[in-house]
Amino acid sequence: MAISRAECVALDAADPLKRIRDEFVLPDGTIYLVGNSLGAPPKTAAAAVTRTVEQEWGGRLVGAWNASGWFDLPLTTGDRLAPLIGAGPGQVVVGDSTSISIVKTVSAALGLRPGRRVVISDLANFPTDRYVVEGLAEALDGYEVRDVTGVENLADALSDDVACVLLSEVDYRTGARHDTASITALVQAAGALMIWDLCHSAGAYQVDVSAADFAVGCTYKYLNGGPGSPAFVYAHPRHQAEARPLLTGWHGHAAPFAFEPGFRPADGIRRFTVSTPHVMSFAPLNASLDIWERVDLAAVRAKSVALTSIFIELVEELCAPYGLELVSPRDPERRGSQVSFGHPDGYPVMRALIDRGVHGDFRAPDVLRFGFAPLYIRFVDAYDAAVTLAEVLEKEHWRDERYGDRLTVT
Amino acid sequence: MAISRAECVALDAADPLKRIRDEFVLPDGTIYLVGNSLGAPPKTAAAAVTRTVEQEWGGRLVGAWNASGWFDLPLTTGDRLAPLIGAGPGQVVVGDSTSISIVKTVSAALGLRPGRRVVISDLANFPTDRYVVEGLAEALDGYEVRDVTGVENLADALSDDVACVLLSEVDYRTGARHDTASITALVQAAGALMIWDLCHSAGAYQVDVSAADFAVGCTYKYLNGGPGSPAFVYAHPRHQAEARPLLTGWHGHAAPFAFEPGFRPADGIRRFTVSTPHVMSFAPLNASLDIWERVDLAAVRAKSVALTSIFIELVEELCAPYGLELVSPRDPERRGSQVSFGHPDGYPVMRALIDRGVHGDFRAPDVLRFGFAPLYIRFVDAYDAAVTLAEVLEKEHWRDERYGDRLTVT
Repeated sequence: MAISRAECVALDAADPLKRIRDEFVLPDGTIYLVGNSLGAPPKTAAAAVTRTVEQEWGGRLVGAWNASGWFDLPLTTGDRLAPLIGAGPGQVVVGDSTSISIVKTVSAALGLRPGRRVVISDLANFPTDRYVVEGLAEALDGYEVRDVTGVENLADALSDDVACVLLSEVDYRTGARHDTASITALVQAAGALMIWDLCHSAGAYQVDVSAADFAVGCTYKYLNGGPGSPAFVYAHPRHQAEARPLLTGWHGHAAPFAFEPGFRPADGIRRFTVSTPHVMSFAPLNASLDIWERVDLAAVRAKSVALTSIFIELVEELCAPYGLELVSPRDPERRGSQVSFGHPDGYPVMRALIDRGVHGDFRAPDVLRFGFAPLYIRFVDAYDAAVTLAEVLEKEHWRDERYGDRLTVT
Repeated sequence: MAISRAECVALDAADPLKRIRDEFVLPDGTIYLVGNSLGAPPKTAAAAVTRTVEQEWGGRLVGAWNASGWFDLPLTTGDRLAPLIGAGPGQVVVGDSTSISIVKTVSAALGLRPGRRVVISDLANFPTDRYVVEGLAEALDGYEVRDVTGVENLADALSDDVACVLLSEVDYRTGARHDTASITALVQAAGALMIWDLCHSAGAYQVDVSAADFAVGCTYKYLNGGPGSPAFVYAHPRHQAEARPLLTGWHGHAAPFAFEPGFRPADGIRRFTVSTPHVMSFAPLNASLDIWERVDLAAVRAKSVALTSIFIELVEELCAPYGLELVSPRDPERRGSQVSFGHPDGYPVMRALIDRGVHGDFRAPDVLRFGFAPLYIRFVDAYDAAVTLAEVLEKEHWRDERYGDRLTVT
């Protein structure tokens, strides 16, 4: 064996992040490798939402908009999140969804590149990115989406009519991590703006958006903000004064309580807010950011690389005869914190695995995904998951008919 | 006096809604007349958010998307809300904010009226409505916003280039309630589509959207859904098959988990959803809808009319010498559930009043607003509020310098 269970136990004992795991709710008997879809709850999340209801809403009623800082939550939460993506204060706002955040940033980018009428999107992007850009281009007269199939074809697609490029830093299916520095430089050299989707990288490792023009991302995966927790927008300071996002609600107005008839954008990053923040959905996210403030991001990345590497080695060794194929890059530098394997019967295989307490997920047509959230996944979890997967395949548990009926929403 | 305190006590004792008040958290010593801005918390709201965190998120993790019904929350919550606005099942979705909902409905309306390039908005609308339409018209080539000043000028503004009209059913400043039936008929006779903003009417009384083309509204005012609880969209069944909202995220896709490259809108009202619902923000709203299911809306309206009428009579009698002027319509049929008075020193007057436990709010330049949420405001509250207001004015408490420094965000 590539590594023994005892060696994994020893790695966990030496893990500088081992105490962080205790700060999360993880059901007994479950190995939760779906933190790349929905992060586990911080133990303080329940108290955070209760406090928001009882002390803030119940205690101060409408006065909480000022007294509890609700009005500024998009900015204060953004400033707390900023270090995780390599941004500074006043560069990130939190609110709305990732899809809405894409509308904000792409529309702002189009306004900053007048005359350029093409938005490039990678077909490997999570589909909502493509759908949102498609809807926007259809609505705006004369705009079009240019699809590329993989970033290796990006250079050929860049022309002087390209306004912006929208790419995922980490591919949601394969877990492949792009070289943001070189791609950003390539795009900007062509006169276009670079927008990174960080959904699968924020919280997986230290992201660096400092060269990007804009970025968006969700907070409910590795950041553990809770189901449907608000998304974020990063806007480089050089664009903030000129950017005019299409979504112009009153919270993005320079003087929201003056009730002026016309829209005047707020200074700075606030113009990327739209309307009343979903206050309840900020509470667990801020509970999670309390944890993140104490986490060493270098340790997160080191553990992530070790976890995913060990899992790949074990699975390849144990499951060699059973038709699994590594979909993720073998080079850890080119991976996020997720490992994907292809298998023609991937769907029932994953269901059989979940039934045995190892939770990953499945993406059509044939991809088994395993997310390794370094804050709470242990080395023994990687070991046990690989051993269980090998059993499911060896004993063909997945052929049981109850595993074939319906997709699990993840 | 128009009515005595003892008579108000008797009215409360006879109120068919009196037990409903006990289901809300209301701080001692506060008369909360700001339910038209942020409704009070249902007592079950804290348990609802705790259950969402502990049992759903913590207990089922990502499996809760199916097992706890998270994926369908926009539709199931919409169906629960529908009867309050006179809509049927499959006609309402809940999610995002009111501003985003306006983008969805106005963009859909523009697509349904090709060739017509004007959106009419009333300058009396809440400003975000105007801002959002302005941002949309600016982004879409060749579109314009035509402002009217008051619905009485709407007929003159309707021409054959008008695609849609966006109006608030109840004016946020004056509390004036429009005659939706006649206005909707007027707009539709001109070939345009009617979009109602129900922020200040949903939950104030039985709304009837059945003739409208689209409607939007928030759920955190009279509906008591909590701070920043998700908004709703109503789309008439006759438009659902053809409507193409500009915001095309994956949750509005016909097959969101097929991960197809191109966007195909879902059948029916689901196409008005965009992305991952803000689950935590749905929990208090559904706790509130548990209460609404047991409420007789005719009793709500009758109590609202009585409360606001008594308050107007008392204030006018007690405050006659002090320069207050009724801004709301005197005819209760033309009012929502809010009473507004103008006063040149309205801002310090309201602050002095709040300091004495009567919470209303202030809107520039000179409007004192008093919201009467019939589910939890009593007749003695209306009485005591009027008496306290009279004291503040008679004794000129509002001249104290501490009342002049800063606007309260509401």
